[in-house]
Amino acid sequence: MLNSIKDSPLYPMLHPKSIAIFGASNSVASMGTALLLSLQSLGFEGPIYPVHPREDRVKGLTAYRNVLDLPKSPELAILVVPTHAAVKVLDECGQKGIKHVIVVTAGFKEVGGAGIEQEQELRAVAQKYGIHFMGPNCIGLTNPYHKLNTTFLEYEGRPGFIGMASQSGSFVTQMFNYIRKLGIGFSAAFSVGNEAQIDIVDCMEYLGACPHTRVIGLYIEGIRRGRAFVETARSIVPHKPIVAIYVGGTDAGKRAGFSHTGSMAGPDRLYDGIFRQSGIIRVHSITELFDACWALGSFPPPKGNRLVIQTHSGGPGAVAADSCDRLGIDLPLLSEETIGKLAPYAPHTASVSNPVDPIII
Amino acid sequence: MLNSIKDSPLYPMLHPKSIAIFGASNSVASMGTALLLSLQSLGFEGPIYPVHPREDRVKGLTAYRNVLDLPKSPELAILVVPTHAAVKVLDECGQKGIKHVIVVTAGFKEVGGAGIEQEQELRAVAQKYGIHFMGPNCIGLTNPYHKLNTTFLEYEGRPGFIGMASQSGSFVTQMFNYIRKLGIGFSAAFSVGNEAQIDIVDCMEYLGACPHTRVIGLYIEGIRRGRAFVETARSIVPHKPIVAIYVGGTDAGKRAGFSHTGSMAGPDRLYDGIFRQSGIIRVHSITELFDACWALGSFPPPKGNRLVIQTHSGGPGAVAADSCDRLGIDLPLLSEETIGKLAPYAPHTASVSNPVDPIII
Repeated sequence: MLNSIKDSPLYPMLHPKSIAIFGASNSVASMGTALLLSLQSLGFEGPIYPVHPREDRVKGLTAYRNVLDLPKSPELAILVVPTHAAVKVLDECGQKGIKHVIVVTAGFKEVGGAGIEQEQELRAVAQKYGIHFMGPNCIGLTNPYHKLNTTFLEYEGRPGFIGMASQSGSFVTQMFNYIRKLGIGFSAAFSVGNEAQIDIVDCMEYLGACPHTRVIGLYIEGIRRGRAFVETARSIVPHKPIVAIYVGGTDAGKRAGFSHTGSMAGPDRLYDGIFRQSGIIRVHSITELFDACWALGSFPPPKGNRLVIQTHSGGPGAVAADSCDRLGIDLPLLSEETIGKLAPYAPHTASVSNPVDPIII
Repeated sequence: MLNSIKDSPLYPMLHPKSIAIFGASNSVASMGTALLLSLQSLGFEGPIYPVHPREDRVKGLTAYRNVLDLPKSPELAILVVPTHAAVKVLDECGQKGIKHVIVVTAGFKEVGGAGIEQEQELRAVAQKYGIHFMGPNCIGLTNPYHKLNTTFLEYEGRPGFIGMASQSGSFVTQMFNYIRKLGIGFSAAFSVGNEAQIDIVDCMEYLGACPHTRVIGLYIEGIRRGRAFVETARSIVPHKPIVAIYVGGTDAGKRAGFSHTGSMAGPDRLYDGIFRQSGIIRVHSITELFDACWALGSFPPPKGNRLVIQTHSGGPGAVAADSCDRLGIDLPLLSEETIGKLAPYAPHTASVSNPVDPIII
């Protein structure tokens, strides 16, 4: 448990005053440029320093040939450089005194072979300089409350109450528009990538303490620190619900997850047990994940499992009743007294049992 | 099995040349008026005769005091009259020689008591005159190919390929806009109501023969003719898939269904067996129902259970792989030859196993 949210290394990453970006250029086809455009589009209020080996200006901003040339040490660096250059650039960030870095660059553990060694080098460089970094092979994070979006898609919605930590970048970025249409938004969202250093447990810990976050959503392909995961979740769920989708439990899911983020998955039942022990609500689709987050973040927890359905037509009422029965939710019959009070407002063709259907269609 | 689609009593109901409507007025608050407006809005091309005890004109049309005053016998009558008047009006329709009637009026078997007797009277009158009728307590039908919509909500989409038979009117009308947004539409849709005469089996039979219908969707609260249901379904599914949602199997669902259409439901497992024996695909939500109809009506049936997932990002690929495993769909590894052919098109960070993920995000 964090004593204060500011004790999390993620706090400065989510609230930087200035940012250096490596890999943005004047070519719209480059991913680094897309990230810079996202940063600008959400209206990040501090200075942004593009670092580019040849350009003098990048997307209207003064560009620097080397991070060592920057007028001051920015609070966050974002690396979207080729795999072979990542270790060197991270080292230069360390020399410049940068303490927080997002490594978007891919081609590390998830591709095996030399990638595994290069990831270890990244970690070693970070340790040498005391750098906290997210990734590699991630798309970064967003904190709409700080007008910060380091991903390659624009954040189109308003700040919201869903805190998301995801081992898939798509389930951050590609949800921006989806949840906006539902009228909800992220409080903060993390794409953790290969989790060479900062991992999903660190994100949960941050989101548990984040005052804007009313519910936490997790996309998991594999958990690295099992005990810490369970303990952190247990400390959060009494005051903030956590919903998770896990996809590493089947052979095909495991294969897909490994080639995606190099994660080691475990049997589905094991994870079922981990979620149950942790008090985490497990779902099986992304639609369910956001439906659950929406509901849990919008309403206080119910006091029991008794429910009254009030519908405007019979079919939807019957489907809702059927779903309740499947889920163990009780639909008690109404008392004579309640029925007596409802009756004057319903035509003779209406139903005042539960579901209550005052208009017959 | 029908020898010809024209042998179905539903054929003339879906292709009338002229229509009498009882219960439409110049008040927009009346349900009968809403039905008339739907008919007009979809551009029904034949004459419409409103029958009203006092009005001379209804919504721009010449109105008649009594159905017996009509210049000719229309091919379809729609009754949206008070419960107590329904039997008398149906008798007058019979006198006029009308053979096809939709009884929207509610307050019959579903309310119990005198309603049960009144429903028997409706049936007796129909038998006396050889009338085929749908309902009571239904909202009618739509055939967008004939510009016919007898429901109280406007049909906003284009004609499509989903044939729907529903014991809930809402799952016809309230789907108009929903499926339009998905880019799909109804070929024909029936709200069968209390099924005093025409029932869901008749509708299945019609839809099985309907050339515009590529898939059949059913919403069921209870099946009256079990054997006919199974036999009809079995004769259809070899050439046209059927998808069903059944909600009468739980206590609450049963209660809701009875007060809705007076249907007698059976245990969930029994219905599971009926669906399996019939070759019907069972679903548990309306979203699933239309998703399945959309997919089954759009694509030819797969030849086996082997699948390749091609994705543009890892997370969605892993979720799809996980779903496939849960559903017993096999994701074979690609052959060396196929991988060799894919490799030149994928960067070194990409995955060419199955899921194939040529771009790493």
